Amino acid sequence: MVVSKDHPRYRSLVIRELLAELNKAGLVSTTGLIAHGRGEAFDYLLGETTNPNALKAESVAVAYLLEAKNPVISVNGNVAALCPREIVSLSEIIPAKIEVNLFHRTEERMERVCAHMEAMGAKKVLGRNPDAKLDGIASDRSLCTREGIFTADVVLVPLEDGDRAEALLHAGKIVLAIDLNPLSRTSKAATVTIIDEVTRAIPNMIDSVDGLKIDLIKRKSLVSTFDNKANLKKSVQMICERLQKD
Amino acid sequence: MVVSKDHPRYRSLVIRELLAELNKAGLVSTTGLIAHGRGEAFDYLLGETTNPNALKAESVAVAYLLEAKNPVISVNGNVAALCPREIVSLSEIIPAKIEVNLFHRTEERMERVCAHMEAMGAKKVLGRNPDAKLDGIASDRSLCTREGIFTADVVLVPLEDGDRAEALLHAGKIVLAIDLNPLSRTSKAATVTIIDEVTRAIPNMIDSVDGLKIDLIKRKSLVSTFDNKANLKKSVQMICERLQKD
Repeated sequence: MVVSKDHPRYRSLVIRELLAELNKAGLVSTTGLIAHGRGEAFDYLLGETTNPNALKAESVAVAYLLEAKNPVISVNGNVAALCPREIVSLSEIIPAKIEVNLFHRTEERMERVCAHMEAMGAKKVLGRNPDAKLDGIASDRSLCTREGIFTADVVLVPLEDGDRAEALLHAGKIVLAIDLNPLSRTSKAATVTIIDEVTRAIPNMIDSVDGLKIDLIKRKSLVSTFDNKANLKKSVQMICERLQKD
Repeated sequence: MVVSKDHPRYRSLVIRELLAELNKAGLVSTTGLIAHGRGEAFDYLLGETTNPNALKAESVAVAYLLEAKNPVISVNGNVAALCPREIVSLSEIIPAKIEVNLFHRTEERMERVCAHMEAMGAKKVLGRNPDAKLDGIASDRSLCTREGIFTADVVLVPLEDGDRAEALLHAGKIVLAIDLNPLSRTSKAATVTIIDEVTRAIPNMIDSVDGLKIDLIKRKSLVSTFDNKANLKKSVQMICERLQKD
């Protein structure tokens, strides 16, 4: 279907059509489409812009990635569909490894998502051949690689389910989440939660890398002073203000 | 995938799997899955229960349906997937006609959705052979039947896009919407907006039919005193209270 440019939610509808296409191509899972819609609603409530609290969390997350010994970006089907090139750029400038992890894992989908990330510029994508398992998590999402997530000290999980976010924390890792729902288990559990849409969040993170690479004091200060709970509360307040504005 | 019953969002995940199945069967459109997710998020914010304001709007909507000369229930793919039997029951006890109208209309999908409603008990389903057009609306959603939506005075539109809701209003119809987003164009435009999940809303409406059939005074009073704008505002306040509770 051709979406009319006059439609007030044009951008949102175009992204829906993109995800529908990539669902047909086997990259995005069908329930991943519903999860995307869930995010859409929260983004709508946030005014579909990056707010100052999100920008702050994005800087803190970058500081953590730069401080890490083995930082890994965990990529699922929706992330690969929405912002593959941005994920590759971020992984190169930190540098951080990329590992694919799917909620609905089949060998075929793993290959498709990994190949898609490679086609979008990723030089190395982990995940095809897992040789380790994360404790405390049901399903094949526990599968990971020793080189990547299993030994990672800091993991960036854009669009992650609460079960896996909690399992990563229980394994002693720093978890950086990108999630549009400030009340989700992932948001509450993560070390740093970025309440922002992933296609805005990753470019913002990329923008802050250079400055934080040279400013070691700011980097340490961001990590040591950030209060995730307080920051989440501010996002909730922003949503309420918007809701009651009308 | 088998969803674990221990998962805190078990019911929500089971419905996702159902919609994913019916998407494969060609009943639910792919972008309809995303729209469902959007609704899911709002329902989550409402606490996944029917609130008193929704129950009130459900009674008012039934009063309008009972007062109507030619009431029609408009059914799309998601509605047919989520609560087909309940729609049939409501249409029988009012009585109201059922007309299928799809955002992504193809002859094949129309046939599938109509046949699905018939398999779920509908004796007559309008929509396969449209002989009229609604003004002011792009796309094939304008197609309708003279027997049904074109001449209807009251139309129940569960899960409707703002464009079509507005076109129905411009055509002089009373529009009864079921929508989980109290800020949507549909919600703001409709004569009566039920902020409730469709699988809860339709059974609630069915429950109120018998009482309102015999109580003509209550029925007239519900219709004449209902303030949709004020009722929507209460739903927004409820969402804010829930958001800030944590």
